[in-house]
Amino acid sequence: MANLEDAAHFLRGADKILILSHRSPDGDTLGCASALSRALIALGKSVMFRCADPVPPKFTYLFEGIEYGEFEPEHIVTVDVADKTLLGSLEPYGDKTDFAIDHHASCRPFAKETWVEGTAGAACELIARLIPALGAEITPKIADCLYTGISTDTGCFRYPNASANTYRIAADLLEHGANAAEINRLMFDTKSRAAVALLKRLYGNMEFHCDGKCAVFCLTSDVIAETGASEDDLDGVSAMVRQVEGVLLGFTLREREGGVWKVSMRATNPADASVVCAKFGGGGHKGAAGCSLTGGLEDVKARVVAACGEAIKALENK
Amino acid sequence: MANLEDAAHFLRGADKILILSHRSPDGDTLGCASALSRALIALGKSVMFRCADPVPPKFTYLFEGIEYGEFEPEHIVTVDVADKTLLGSLEPYGDKTDFAIDHHASCRPFAKETWVEGTAGAACELIARLIPALGAEITPKIADCLYTGISTDTGCFRYPNASANTYRIAADLLEHGANAAEINRLMFDTKSRAAVALLKRLYGNMEFHCDGKCAVFCLTSDVIAETGASEDDLDGVSAMVRQVEGVLLGFTLREREGGVWKVSMRATNPADASVVCAKFGGGGHKGAAGCSLTGGLEDVKARVVAACGEAIKALENK
Repeated sequence: MANLEDAAHFLRGADKILILSHRSPDGDTLGCASALSRALIALGKSVMFRCADPVPPKFTYLFEGIEYGEFEPEHIVTVDVADKTLLGSLEPYGDKTDFAIDHHASCRPFAKETWVEGTAGAACELIARLIPALGAEITPKIADCLYTGISTDTGCFRYPNASANTYRIAADLLEHGANAAEINRLMFDTKSRAAVALLKRLYGNMEFHCDGKCAVFCLTSDVIAETGASEDDLDGVSAMVRQVEGVLLGFTLREREGGVWKVSMRATNPADASVVCAKFGGGGHKGAAGCSLTGGLEDVKARVVAACGEAIKALENK
Repeated sequence: MANLEDAAHFLRGADKILILSHRSPDGDTLGCASALSRALIALGKSVMFRCADPVPPKFTYLFEGIEYGEFEPEHIVTVDVADKTLLGSLEPYGDKTDFAIDHHASCRPFAKETWVEGTAGAACELIARLIPALGAEITPKIADCLYTGISTDTGCFRYPNASANTYRIAADLLEHGANAAEINRLMFDTKSRAAVALLKRLYGNMEFHCDGKCAVFCLTSDVIAETGASEDDLDGVSAMVRQVEGVLLGFTLREREGGVWKVSMRATNPADASVVCAKFGGGGHKGAAGCSLTGGLEDVKARVVAACGEAIKALENK
């Protein structure tokens, strides 16, 4: 396994560098790519950036003013890519990757060298340490990019992956000029009109079962089409179902083709979403799990609610 | 003005101490009171705590296990109290207060000595520095109390008052055992059933004007009664109205007695809520302001929307 010094050594000696982000890019992979691009260009290197999917509009500010080159890459680096399949249509680059920088404990190394720190809250934490090691400056723009990755990957410091070290790196980035409050406003306090339409449906149609300990929301094709909600909006909904006071197990049922319903379940301690989803051949973690069922909406819903009811009863009898 | 050393000196020499929080207590004033209580009791001192209003259920964990005494107080300390009127029914204690510890730049000193740091994101930041200066340990329980105050007063590090120093103190508290993720889940990711009912109304009935740049939600007496929403829930709604993409000025109209409507307005840069509210004799800051109007709902709404429209037009013509 490579470390910070190895990554710095490799990049100091490299030029014509292609940086790759993972498909369906998020704030962390894009924060890494944009920050590292800026630092390498400041050091006089030629840099390119590629991602299988377009940069979502909310993240385009990360790349403003970066002057990318066009050339035959001599060195390839991936950021926040835990598995080469996550490169999407760029997967062929996986075997040609020289250096992978990642923070997923589950990382499946594919590059010639890999620097993974599974305890980091965001891959941007690694880049925040790498840039000074390269001899480059953390400019205010770079600080914005890195803060974006750290804040988005930790849910604005809400999740358990935000460690003391995460907070200290964020403090340093603020001192380097990161516009933390403005970034957080854009990332967490801005809702699209489609998201508003979805929330209207969610709070209007959410159902409670098992004495309010189980909550369900059905993302039928109709709801999705009517609201115009994005994947990002839809992904966030199962967490919201779980957030209601007293709810131990909350899930969404999302309509797929051919009568298939995808269950996305979230649990509050001591409930375990993975145990419930395992009954239907699914899996995941204690806090978040999923499974798929086939049938009519009411039938599928009743089966999952019943399984939640059994799990809740088992907890009460403990 | 007193400082950290003065506060430590005073408390080291004090006993039979009464700690006071401000009325309508929030996470910061209660985090301060509970953390300081624990530290002073650990140092062998007798401590009492009073607040004009009850501790809200979501904050009772802060006080679990604290053994308060009953005695005639010899020394009085206030925490996070910017003005003696904020003591509510305990205001008579204001003139007897020996030491006030606060972080409001707008603080109007009333105690014999006052330690204010207007740049601190939360008064708990001051207590986090005071406790080690007293020679007491930051136990995991104290770390929980202080983290609660810092996180709640900065909107989980979202607001501009979270400085680099705020993040560094939070990092230290995590190392002292603060359950940051669990605290944040309770503070930010838990919605009461009343809050859910209010959100249903909000997202269902919010109105957009001025090409989507102005948003309004009416908190009529009916809505408030039907949803059973708390003051806390109602206070948060005007910020949510502003959060919709494209909205520059968002406000709530809240029904008071005698046909009076209270306007609570939030603005997104470059719009200025205080300019609009000033037209109706109100005031506030650029980002958040308020005013009151008398009349029928539709008439009052139309007048405020028209003022928002003028302000938005003025921005566009700049």
